Parts: sequence; structure tokens; C-alpha cells
Amino acid sequence: MSAQTSVSYTTKRTLCAQATRCLNPDNINPHVKEAKYAVRGELAVKAEEYRVKLAQGDKSLPFDSVIFANIGNPQQLDQKPITFFRQVLSLLENPLLLNNPEALRTSFGYEQDVIDRAKVLLADVQSVGAYSHSQGAPVIRNSVAKFIEGRDGFPANPSDLFLCAGASSGVNTILNVICNGPQAGVLVPIPQYPLYTATLSLLNAQCVPYLLEEEKAWGTDVNAIRASLEKAKSNGTDVRSIVVINPGNPTGASLGADDIKSVLDIAAEEKLVVIADEVYQTNVFEGEFTSFKKRLRQLQQEQPGKYDNVELVSLHSVSKGMVGECGHRGGYFELVGFDPEVAAQIYKLVSIGLCPPVIGQCLLEMMVNPPKEGSPSHEVYQKEYNGIRDGLHQRALALYDAFQKMEGVECQKPQVCYVVFKLTRSQPTSVANINIFTQGAMYLFPTITLPPKAVEAAAEEKRAADEFYCLRLLDATGVCVVPGSGFGQKENTLHFRTTFLAPGTDWVERIVKFHAEFMAKYK
Amino acid sequence: MSAQTSVSYTTKRTLCAQATRCLNPDNINPHVKEAKYAVRGELAVKAEEYRVKLAQGDKSLPFDSVIFANIGNPQQLDQKPITFFRQVLSLLENPLLLNNPEALRTSFGYEQDVIDRAKVLLADVQSVGAYSHSQGAPVIRNSVAKFIEGRDGFPANPSDLFLCAGASSGVNTILNVICNGPQAGVLVPIPQYPLYTATLSLLNAQCVPYLLEEEKAWGTDVNAIRASLEKAKSNGTDVRSIVVINPGNPTGASLGADDIKSVLDIAAEEKLVVIADEVYQTNVFEGEFTSFKKRLRQLQQEQPGKYDNVELVSLHSVSKGMVGECGHRGGYFELVGFDPEVAAQIYKLVSIGLCPPVIGQCLLEMMVNPPKEGSPSHEVYQKEYNGIRDGLHQRALALYDAFQKMEGVECQKPQVCYVVFKLTRSQPTSVANINIFTQGAMYLFPTITLPPKAVEAAAEEKRAADEFYCLRLLDATGVCVVPGSGFGQKENTLHFRTTFLAPGTDWVERIVKFHAEFMAKYK
Repeated sequence: MSAQTSVSYTTKRTLCAQATRCLNPDNINPHVKEAKYAVRGELAVKAEEYRVKLAQGDKSLPFDSVIFANIGNPQQLDQKPITFFRQVLSLLENPLLLNNPEALRTSFGYEQDVIDRAKVLLADVQSVGAYSHSQGAPVIRNSVAKFIEGRDGFPANPSDLFLCAGASSGVNTILNVICNGPQAGVLVPIPQYPLYTATLSLLNAQCVPYLLEEEKAWGTDVNAIRASLEKAKSNGTDVRSIVVINPGNPTGASLGADDIKSVLDIAAEEKLVVIADEVYQTNVFEGEFTSFKKRLRQLQQEQPGKYDNVELVSLHSVSKGMVGECGHRGGYFELVGFDPEVAAQIYKLVSIGLCPPVIGQCLLEMMVNPPKEGSPSHEVYQKEYNGIRDGLHQRALALYDAFQKMEGVECQKPQVCYVVFKLTRSQPTSVANINIFTQGAMYLFPTITLPPKAVEAAAEEKRAADEFYCLRLLDATGVCVVPGSGFGQKENTLHFRTTFLAPGTDWVERIVKFHAEFMAKYK
Repeated sequence: MSAQTSVSYTTKRTLCAQATRCLNPDNINPHVKEAKYAVRGELAVKAEEYRVKLAQGDKSLPFDSVIFANIGNPQQLDQKPITFFRQVLSLLENPLLLNNPEALRTSFGYEQDVIDRAKVLLADVQSVGAYSHSQGAPVIRNSVAKFIEGRDGFPANPSDLFLCAGASSGVNTILNVICNGPQAGVLVPIPQYPLYTATLSLLNAQCVPYLLEEEKAWGTDVNAIRASLEKAKSNGTDVRSIVVINPGNPTGASLGADDIKSVLDIAAEEKLVVIADEVYQTNVFEGEFTSFKKRLRQLQQEQPGKYDNVELVSLHSVSKGMVGECGHRGGYFELVGFDPEVAAQIYKLVSIGLCPPVIGQCLLEMMVNPPKEGSPSHEVYQKEYNGIRDGLHQRALALYDAFQKMEGVECQKPQVCYVVFKLTRSQPTSVANINIFTQGAMYLFPTITLPPKAVEAAAEEKRAADEFYCLRLLDATGVCVVPGSGFGQKENTLHFRTTFLAPGTDWVERIVKFHAEFMAKYK
């Protein structure tokens, strides 16, 4: 508990006594109030209201379905879970099923490796209803360590691994430890997933933004990072960490070995903790994903000394990739190069929350250790995994075709499963231009250029122009997307983020039709 | 993001540059460092190390098993999960099982109500792998609202309910909103579950302790609350909230209707948000549990006006009671009397973490809506539920018998399933005295009186005397308990908390034998 202070007590108490309740929006934790999280903000709430209305048979809306394109939630749409994972989880939830393996096989097609895996996991966790070790069950951390070793070709230590309730929870933990006061700063890419800015707001720390280069496929520009860093330092900010989202959210940009080295160089020189958000690591279909851990270990071998003291946190999750098991809240982070006493403090911090959900931990184990070639479940697993990947690819192509048929829309042929769109009005009077970057991601992040009248109309509602646009889009079409202002964007640019997961192309046509009408109305 | 400040940047940066890494124990978030959480602290870590050693065949330890009596984790010990719950969860994890209901029935004994429940829940959540609404799935919140209505006889609104990843996560959310600066204070009972002090440390807010009365069965003393409140106010603390753990952890004390009224009186007069931690509500076997919500609604009817603006948060969990599903991380909190704009801020805050684990939400639904009388699974459910309750009762009696047979130990016959022990040395030279309070709880919280030489030996190791005692206990017996200092205790008293869940009485004998030897050594 901190030392008491007498500052402003009287004023605050008076305010409280005058109000009818203790808590009102003006006297709650101001940092909660400052935090912004548009992914589930006003638009998402309104979309949910529309969904309920439609489900209740309301015919007054100008659309017959709500498209939740605001959040990467594959199983809310039509993505089926991977059978092997769910078969094992069913046995973990009801181990009594293991008493009749014959019926599991004959009536439900459970293979022996499903049964074996369930037994291994149960032997470790005892029951998925029991608290596990606060860092996660030991056998599961062993599997994650082996996965990392296989991916990177460098050793990983289970005691450096912390399983968590999705990567979000891990980010929260790490930022809590790093941010040691209002002068502490963290470099965050713009645009970014708003978890970062929201958490920094909650912690009353400084977000030090560095702009990604839209014109270079949302690349990471080392000079931009250095410039932001120097500016923040000259303003008195103690920059302690840099966040890299690789592949990027919402941008989809994927970093090559040289880009990663550049970031690690800055980290080594400036003593910055690198937070590598690598939850989209299997969403790279062009080239190969390189982890920050792998690159760091390579550099440590190549140039002994220089990178020895780099501190890296690498995060992964069961929510994205071909797994898409968001609702299970599973994930992990690995600490690399941390002071053991700091790691002990991180352990204490996570122990206050007891443990991450145990069934989510078990799912993570299977994600990092799926059925091997030759095992009975392997063929179906591989077929399903590829099917999800190919399905997404086909969806990208279908979307591409839909855009091709629309007037004034241009785009390059998608070469990857996930694509990033850049949507710009090429001429003041025409409709949108669309360019596709050939990178990895799960989202589209189009640029929109709105007429001055639309910007004025937005200002009258005291809204950002892109937020205004997205609200009108939802009202007119039922398509829920997130305004670019929710992710941060370069001054004088406007965007929105839409996921790529909703089936069909009808909803894309709804967007394009709306866009044309909107532009006509405000031109 | 907060305003930038130039305070102490240079000093901090210099410190950082001199260190080999950015982060060291002296420059991380000081509030993380200050937070204490003994339930999973040094003792628990050491106990886990011993467990691993034993599992690896190490014969050097003076015991052959580790008893984890430090945490209420029933399924880690021998408590079996309730079959209905786990059958439904297995279907939610693998809905393909629903394609062969006949085999489910004949080979695995799944009744129709199991299948029906799974279908209802799946219709609401779509997939347990999808993110739900950030407050929790609508159908599940409806069930929780009905449960509260049935329990209290007063309406509950699903939109006031927030499902969470165990009550711990809910407490964290609420304290985050209430604590608006270093002057903010929260009244916390002492002894308490250390989640509260730890979270207040993290938030850099003031813990305003009020002592429970050990001599009155750990009762809540209104005068003690008022005295603490006045003292804190005079020190400049803005006391905003009061925590009540009912039934108590670690004390097991249960509040009657009058006690609850006294707390609500103070809350109404002083405009305090009441945080009612009611996770042990089904662990009351003597008399009846009264919820704060029910009492508040009664008082609002009886004395219109006076209690209208009381703000209450009531928490519940799937981890305790006869359910004991800690690893699933399920729970909820209900907001009563909150400003809707404050509730909206709470929604935003929880939305940053996306949603609580969906499978844990489904388990919560079944806890609050178990098979009804007449439904096919009801009989087995009721039998299992009563079996767990009776098993705990028998364990209490067996423990009582074991204590009875030990020299110098006295105790009253336990009249309830869970009992609270008071263990004191009646004479400086004798061994322990034990008194049982007839209340509800899940833990024992004995007082220990240690000889001056033991206190000195502890001081030499820079440890609290009870921590010293508990470490020696672990080293000698393999029994892991938590020192009373981890929960807070009255000056010049020492305690430890042990759960009541470990099977057998051998471990109790280990404690008593150790105690006698310890006392002899330091007398």
C-alpha cells in the first residue's frame, strides 16, 4: 500500500457528497475514462442491438442481417473448429467418456491419439476444473517450449513461459510491469490494435506513436521510430519499450529479417523492452514468418555482446491463425533476456489472478503440438487446417472479383490468403480505388477520403469523420466495421478496418452501394 | 493518454543506462513490487518444487507427499466434478457428438436434458470458440438474473450483470473504476483474502483496514468500521468503498441480516460503494445465507429514500461451493444502483479484455440453473451435490476426531460442514488449544503463539514470525499453508490459513507433531 497523501481530499469529498451517488462519470478513475477501445465500442453495441431487433422479427431496418466485420471472430461466422482439438477437449471436460473407448471409436470416430492426448493432459492438470500453476500447467509449457524450439531452431525454457487468457491478458501483465510512472513511455505503431493505447491509458503511461508507412505496404520505418523516440525523450518521456505487431493488426504488414534486425538494433542501443505481438504468425502466406526470438538469437551468435541484454517478450494466441478459438482465451508469452527477479515479479503479478483458464491451456497445447504425420488423426487434421486456409484464400479471391465488377474500383489480384486493401478516392468526384498489398493479415484497412460536407456533418455530431461514416454504414447496411481513428492514423487520413471472415460477397456490395450514396449525398 | 511530465526523467534514464538491462527490480512499476499475494508466494513455489522432487523419485525429503492446503482448489485434491455439468460441457466442446444422441444415451448415459441444455447454450454462443458479448452471452445472463431473483425475491436485470473470469477478475475491474487516485481508499476487512490489498497496491490506492473481531467468531464490528473510516478521513483519504467478504475468507464468518443492515447504513450515510464478495454463499450450513442485494432491496422498501442511492457490487463464482470448478474461471458481478454512464465505462473496460472464457460462462449457467426436480438428470445431480457437501462434513468430523486424540488439543464438536478453528496456546508451556466456531467457510485460520526465541530466529531471517513458522512446517512435513500475515492480522497475533479439503487426517497429525517439536526447539 502506498503512502497516504492529503492532496485534494476535501474538494473530492465535497463533489462526492453533492452527487446522489458516490460514483459518477466525472469522479471515477480518470484513466479508465481516457481509455479508448473502438473494436467493441458504440458501433459494436449498436450492431448488437440491431441483431437482437432482427432476431425478434423487427422489419423496420433496411437490412436483414448484421455483419460483424468489426472483430476477428472466425467461429462467430462460419469457421468450424478443428475436430482433433475439440474431441480431446470433450474428453477433458468429461473424463468419464474415457471409460468406454470402444464406443468413442465406433460411434464417434475418436482415434487412439485423441484418447492418448486426453490422458496425457489429464495426468498433468488432474482436472480442468482445478487451478493450475499460475504460469500454466508444466506439461503444457514443455510442449510450447518444444514448439518454439522447432520453429526457431533455438532452445526455449518452459520456466520462461507464461500461459495467459489470450494474448490481451499477457500484454496487460507486461505493460503493468514496464510502466513505472507517468513519465514511462512505450513506442506503439500507428495504426495499432487499440489494446496497446487503452492499456497505456489505464496505466497512466505515455504512448509514443511511430507511424507505419502506408505507401510502403504499411512497413516499419526505422527512421520514423528513431524520430519518435528522440522527440519523446526531448519531451521528458522515459521510453522503455517498443511494441511491434508482426504480422500487423490492422495493417497486415509482415516484417522481414532486416526489419526485425533494425528494431532489435534500436532496442539494444536504447535499452528498450521489445514486445513482439506475433499472434498472426501463421497468417503469413507469402514468404516465411520470422520470429523476433529467432532473429535475436541469430544476431547474438553473429555479433557476440551487442544483443546480449536485449529483453524480449513474444506473444502468441489460440484466437487467430487457422485455429480461431477466441472464446477459449488461450495464449502465452515468452520472456527472453529478463532479469530473474523481474520475472519473479511477473510471476507474482499473474498469481494474483490465480491461473489462466485450464481448458484454454490444453487447447494451446494442441495448437503447438498437433497430430503428427503417421498418427491416426493427422490426415483429418491436415485436411481441415488446409481447408480453413484455402477457404480464406477463396474468400479473398471472391471479394477481389466482387470489387472488380464495381464501378470505379481497382485492385491487384490477391496473391495471399489474407490481403490488405487500400481504398482511396483517386479523383475527387469518382468512387473508391482499391489496392491490395501482398502481405499477411486478417483484416482490410481501406483509406477513405470524405467530402468536406461529410466532415462538417460529422463535426456537428461531435464525431470523427470516419466514425460518422462507419455509423451511417451500419445504419444503412447492417455492416459493422471499426473507424480508423480507433487504431490511430496519420493526420488527414481516414480509414476503417473490416475483417475478412464474413462469408459471401453480398456484404461487400452493401458497402460499395452505401459508399456511392454517401459520397453523392455529401458531395 | 495522459499529459507528459518531465519529472525525474534524467535520473531514471541514467539508472537505466547503467544497468545491463532496461528492467531491474528497482525500476519496474513500484506498485507491482509492493503488491503482496501470499497464497501463491514463496511457500507455494517451494511446495511445488518439493512435489516435482518427489515425483522424480527424490528420497531425501522427510515426507512422501506435498499437501497443498494453501489454496481452495477442491479438484486438485479428490473432489469429483458434477456429472451433469461436465456432460454438457463435453457436448459444447464437441457438438459433433450431438449427431448421435442414441450412442450418447446408451454408451455414456447422457440424459435428454443434457442434450437439450447443450443445444440451448450452443444456440446462444454459436461456438464456445467464438468471442461472446463482453458482458457475457445474453442467454447466460438471463439465467443468472433468474437465479438472483429466485434467491432474493427481487428482480434482477441481465444488463446489470457482467460475467467474468472468476470473481478475482471482477474485483479487479471494479477496483480499477473506483480508485481514482492515490487518495482513494477502500475499507477492507482484516484478515482478508489478499486479492484486495494486492489490487489496491497495484492501483496505488489506499487500503483502509477494519479489524474483524476474532473473539466474536470473526464478526463484523460496525464501530471498528466507523473508527477506521474516521481515522482514514482525518488522514486525508477519500474513502469510496467498503469490501465485505460474506461468508468470510479466511475467517468463515457469516453475516446476519442486522450486520448487513449496519454495513448498508454506513454505505448510505458515507456514500460508499459496497463490494460484496459472496463467492462462499453456498458454503453456509448453519442458518441461511442472506445476500447484500436482498437486504438492500428490503431496506429500500421499508425505509423509502434512505437507501435509494446505495451502490452495490455483488460477486459470485463457479470456483467455490459444491461446484469447485476453479480452473474454468467463471463468475459474475451484478451492479446495483450504479449511474448508467459509470456502468458504460465498466463495459468499455471489460471489453478491452474482449470476453470471459465462454466455456466458463456456460458452466456458470448450469451452476445457477441446475437440473430441476423431475428432469432426468436431477436425481444424480442432487445426489452428487449432497455427496460433496456431506463428504466435507465428514472430513470436518474426522479432523475433529483427530484433534481430539492429540495431547493438549481441545475443540468443540463441529456443527457445520465447514468450520473455522481458533488454535491458541492456552498456557505458555502447553501445546495448542483449538476452538471451533459454528459458521460457514472453507478454511481453518488458527492463531499461533510463538516463543520469543522463534520470533528472534524469524527476525534473523528477516521474516515475519508466522511466515518463518509456515516455512519450517513445509520443510518438515510437506504441508503448505499460508501465513496469517498474508491476510492481515491484529497486531501481536499470528495465524495461518489452511484449507479444509485435503483428504485424510495424516496431514493434520503431521502439523501437530511439527508444532510440538517446533515449540520444544524454541522454548
